[in-house]
Amino acid sequence: MIKVGIIGAGRIGRVHITSITTRVPDAVIKTVADPFLNDETAAWAKSMGVEHTTKDYKEIINDPEISAVLICSSTDTHSPISVEAIKAGKHVFCEKPIDHDIAKIKEVIDALEGTNLKYQVGFNRRFDHNFESLQQAVAAGKVGKPEIIKITSRDPEPPSIDYVKVSGGMFLDMTIHDFDMVRYLAGCDATEVYVQSANLVDPAIGEAGDVDTAVITLQMENGAIAVIDNCRRASYGYDQRAEVFGSDGMAAISNDSQSSTVISNAEGVTGEKPMFFFLERYMDAYGKEVAAFIDAIVNDKETPLNVYDGLKPVLMGLAAKKSSEEHRPVKISEIME
Amino acid sequence: MIKVGIIGAGRIGRVHITSITTRVPDAVIKTVADPFLNDETAAWAKSMGVEHTTKDYKEIINDPEISAVLICSSTDTHSPISVEAIKAGKHVFCEKPIDHDIAKIKEVIDALEGTNLKYQVGFNRRFDHNFESLQQAVAAGKVGKPEIIKITSRDPEPPSIDYVKVSGGMFLDMTIHDFDMVRYLAGCDATEVYVQSANLVDPAIGEAGDVDTAVITLQMENGAIAVIDNCRRASYGYDQRAEVFGSDGMAAISNDSQSSTVISNAEGVTGEKPMFFFLERYMDAYGKEVAAFIDAIVNDKETPLNVYDGLKPVLMGLAAKKSSEEHRPVKISEIME
Amino acid sequence: MIKVGIIGAGRIGRVHITSITTRVPDAVIKTVADPFLNDETAAWAKSMGVEHTTKDYKEIINDPEISAVLICSSTDTHSPISVEAIKAGKHVFCEKPIDHDIAKIKEVIDALEGTNLKYQVGFNRRFDHNFESLQQAVAAGKVGKPEIIKITSRDPEPPSIDYVKVSGGMFLDMTIHDFDMVRYLAGCDATEVYVQSANLVDPAIGEAGDVDTAVITLQMENGAIAVIDNCRRASYGYDQRAEVFGSDGMAAISNDSQSSTVISNAEGVTGEKPMFFFLERYMDAYGKEVAAFIDAIVNDKETPLNVYDGLKPVLMGLAAKKSSEEHRPVKISEIME
Amino acid sequence: MIKVGIIGAGRIGRVHITSITTRVPDAVIKTVADPFLNDETAAWAKSMGVEHTTKDYKEIINDPEISAVLICSSTDTHSPISVEAIKAGKHVFCEKPIDHDIAKIKEVIDALEGTNLKYQVGFNRRFDHNFESLQQAVAAGKVGKPEIIKITSRDPEPPSIDYVKVSGGMFLDMTIHDFDMVRYLAGCDATEVYVQSANLVDPAIGEAGDVDTAVITLQMENGAIAVIDNCRRASYGYDQRAEVFGSDGMAAISNDSQSSTVISNAEGVTGEKPMFFFLERYMDAYGKEVAAFIDAIVNDKETPLNVYDGLKPVLMGLAAKKSSEEHRPVKISEIME
Repeated sequence: MIKVGIIGAGRIGRVHITSITTRVPDAVIKTVADPFLNDETAAWAKSMGVEHTTKDYKEIINDPEISAVLICSSTDTHSPISVEAIKAGKHVFCEKPIDHDIAKIKEVIDALEGTNLKYQVGFNRRFDHNFESLQQAVAAGKVGKPEIIKITSRDPEPPSIDYVKVSGGMFLDMTIHDFDMVRYLAGCDATEVYVQSANLVDPAIGEAGDVDTAVITLQMENGAIAVIDNCRRASYGYDQRAEVFGSDGMAAISNDSQSSTVISNAEGVTGEKPMFFFLERYMDAYGKEVAAFIDAIVNDKETPLNVYDGLKPVLMGLAAKKSSEEHRPVKISEIME
Repeated sequence: MIKVGIIGAGRIGRVHITSITTRVPDAVIKTVADPFLNDETAAWAKSMGVEHTTKDYKEIINDPEISAVLICSSTDTHSPISVEAIKAGKHVFCEKPIDHDIAKIKEVIDALEGTNLKYQVGFNRRFDHNFESLQQAVAAGKVGKPEIIKITSRDPEPPSIDYVKVSGGMFLDMTIHDFDMVRYLAGCDATEVYVQSANLVDPAIGEAGDVDTAVITLQMENGAIAVIDNCRRASYGYDQRAEVFGSDGMAAISNDSQSSTVISNAEGVTGEKPMFFFLERYMDAYGKEVAAFIDAIVNDKETPLNVYDGLKPVLMGLAAKKSSEEHRPVKISEIME
Repeated sequence: MIKVGIIGAGRIGRVHITSITTRVPDAVIKTVADPFLNDETAAWAKSMGVEHTTKDYKEIINDPEISAVLICSSTDTHSPISVEAIKAGKHVFCEKPIDHDIAKIKEVIDALEGTNLKYQVGFNRRFDHNFESLQQAVAAGKVGKPEIIKITSRDPEPPSIDYVKVSGGMFLDMTIHDFDMVRYLAGCDATEVYVQSANLVDPAIGEAGDVDTAVITLQMENGAIAVIDNCRRASYGYDQRAEVFGSDGMAAISNDSQSSTVISNAEGVTGEKPMFFFLERYMDAYGKEVAAFIDAIVNDKETPLNVYDGLKPVLMGLAAKKSSEEHRPVKISEIME
Repeated sequence: MIKVGIIGAGRIGRVHITSITTRVPDAVIKTVADPFLNDETAAWAKSMGVEHTTKDYKEIINDPEISAVLICSSTDTHSPISVEAIKAGKHVFCEKPIDHDIAKIKEVIDALEGTNLKYQVGFNRRFDHNFESLQQAVAAGKVGKPEIIKITSRDPEPPSIDYVKVSGGMFLDMTIHDFDMVRYLAGCDATEVYVQSANLVDPAIGEAGDVDTAVITLQMENGAIAVIDNCRRASYGYDQRAEVFGSDGMAAISNDSQSSTVISNAEGVTGEKPMFFFLERYMDAYGKEVAAFIDAIVNDKETPLNVYDGLKPVLMGLAAKKSSEEHRPVKISEIME
């Protein structure tokens, strides 16, 4: 039985607490730490079978019984706590992104070096039934050699301006999931990024120095061209589609909705909107990613998404940011220098 | 070049005039006859290249140059004019139904006996791209041995009460197309019919002695069970779907709409309604059925729908009517006695 | 906290054990009883947090701490154990059908009389996201007054012949779910049933005195006509669709598949088959039905499916059987006499 | 009655001959000219009602009875014959592109100046039922302010290498239709183009100096970002889809197939491939564009696609070519200089 500590009991921390409790028989949560922990959250955690709650995450770091840590705290703490946890000999599951600063991610890489510790980064979409099935179809050669990879990724509504300001920008906060997905579907890295971006949704986003709408073209190592289109607002809900076109065919996935009910009447033939947002659409994927992390520990396997899988989308995001600012194609190698 | 006479210049007569003029290079229309022919229709026919128009259909019957006749006049005239035309040595395309009275249809059968004349009945749906493709899939064994055949056939709006009164009832007027389709898809005849019917759309239809809603179950000779559901009114347009389930799979067709445009917004994901009614949905099929008739003459082939294909659905319709009235399963053989 | 006893640890019993453990915070399973309980099942139950396992269900009946019982044993034991449990003052969730014998169901009804005990019958499909959404659309008036209700319900493969022999026949074993669904969607009872049935899948089923393919027409109290088509074998998986057509439109649901992946290649445009069978398709519904049962107890509400909801589909099934045998429409009132 | 001359009796010339003959009652074809005219084509033209055939297009230019000319000859002749025809006082329908050389197009513009002659360029896709419906939805404000416009345009198979060499390159030969479509859907011009292109389909295309796969990003005047993905080969047929995403929703169109038949079996749920290529998919659109041209003449209206609509996509194509070669975003204004 793996004893787990969870650092951060916000929205995503609570998702992981629920997943481990109900879906991961090989793990129990010993401690949940959150500097803003209130009585309600503490009581809920207890009701879920969590042994102990605290405001101090050091209690987790210093607990020799805890062998695995989930880092669900604010982004700026991801890399330092990762390093601390690794140094304390713990396996780490870290929410995305590890950091916006390459140097900080390299500190995590350095800390891992020479250990046999598992490190997994939380790109949950790889565990979604649609994206997983799409990747398997491509990897099985169902479309031949990939040539064009397309991802549509639009949020139902923009985050608060306060969040936008600390988010690292749309490419590091939102597109980063799509950058991971491009790598997952292509089975290789990108070499260059070109961004056409705009501020169309809310002028306040532009005033905060960010964009909210973009088309991002990527040259992939295997010769394929990838294109992502993003918007921070879609009136019909969370739009999460992808398509891989290749020498022998095309594989595509569409959105999930709550039911398949279609109403035909004088107004037309109307089905349901896509599920509202990531918590609705990816709840099952969150459970599967954590189960995969525990499985990697229990059975001493590679995690499905290691620290380099955490690094690469950040490089892509920084290149995208640079392309957006300098209005030219930017090579990933420019960022790594 | 086949010279054609068209008897009846109503809605469907005009459809055939247009088809022959624009799509059937082996035929020209010499004469159009209609007792209610007005100047406007005559002028339009001339503009379509029709040589001659008249109120007297005998001009067509007696014209030795005309070798093929299309009977598009009122239902009660279908069988007598068929007999006249056959006796005058002409090939006949007759709109459905030949007659509601089996004895009258038998007169047409008798008239055809010993001649080499072509006779085709106008069950146009067999020429629709969807139904044709479905039949071909079934005939090619794509679903194995047929076991359940389902047809949904709903009109967008009921006909006028005046028409209902002379229509022969829903089963002989509307369902008759579905009875033909069941035979076409099953590749065999029905042996028994059971009807569950109701008057739900308009009380005036019930007062006229008819029904407007029904579920009709048929036992087919090959062991399959068929089921048709009908309604005289569908708020979303003309609903024309079918499904054949068999030992190795299922083949199904859905409705056609004017375009594939789908709008996603806060209200849902909305596509277009089915095409409004038979003239929109089956315009191409009308052209193909007439082309097939001319082709049968020119190349001395069997017509795709002969006089017996005209008889059988009438038997099924009369059995359905009897089942609806007597509230019991009725064998087709009861009607033939 | 409700203490629950589970009688029967077969396939469906284990589903309910899992549901209660992971999804129903207000209930714990104290005891699981199964006459064929083996070490493996007992160990698994323990790992799920079940306190006690036994071969003797009387331990549950006689345990004053246990207030709710789930009866998941063989069909012939449903009604006697229901009566025993009720007499012991326990709330009962009973798998479908309560019994094939109306008199036995009436004993359960009698036992319940004068108590305030909850009784729920396991028609799980009402809790499926698609069927629930369809029912809500109809109940909300989205299609106007219901006129035609259609259910397609086909199993991927027939049960063993041994099971067929004790199943009570297809109408009481398989169609019974569809009979419940017709009542749920129509919002009323059926008054008459007509069955067209056949033995097309496996001659051994016919030799066992049963049918495997049927089209079942029902007259509903509210004037609507319902039609169910069943087959014990569908090469493409579990086919579970429904459609409600009414005065103002149509609502329809389609099958669920594992993912939305569609492959386009030289062979066509191919999506996934429907989920294989009821355990795949309805796993979430099983969880929701048990949660609803516990909720009814905790909050003293009506169960969503009471003992009469268990009785009515049996009446419909017996009428269907009679119709199939006597080849005529059979009124439900004939069965109740 | 408009007398028409058709210059060029190749594939597309014959499409227009058929359209005018069967669908455009206000026009007759007096003369068809083609330098390679053979007996078979001449006989076919006669059978379609064409009065006269010739190898010399000057017979059309010099015929005072002919008021409208359709130029369907090879691309290099489009602009000089346009100028000749205009100078002879004839209305002109010119196949796309007018020319690859801006100066040559300007000669056509100059020739038109001061005349009241109609000039239409053959971007047929605007007349396709799907694209037309999509444009109408956008123009009617159904998606709000357009923000992202996506076009997928893939041919089933590449042209011959001989054709590739004289085609002007993929952007001027194939993407030019998509450039027109982007303008049509956005309701405005593009200001900048960025191309990510590759030679993935056939090395011979690369050796001929062309590309066969591309993702093209465009900045539109109204702030929207457009993206086109092209490939010269799609194993599943002609892929012609589009999507307009805006502030209030999304409108999307999908491919047309020959029928809606879907087969469900052990292999999956399989529908038909898209229609094979442009002649299958756009046959109806070809008829409508010519009808619109004749209508513009008869009723003295603007043609739906004037000479500037012919110029703009060439500018976009030249900018795309430059972007592909120089690997940077290129402004349309750079091309106009």
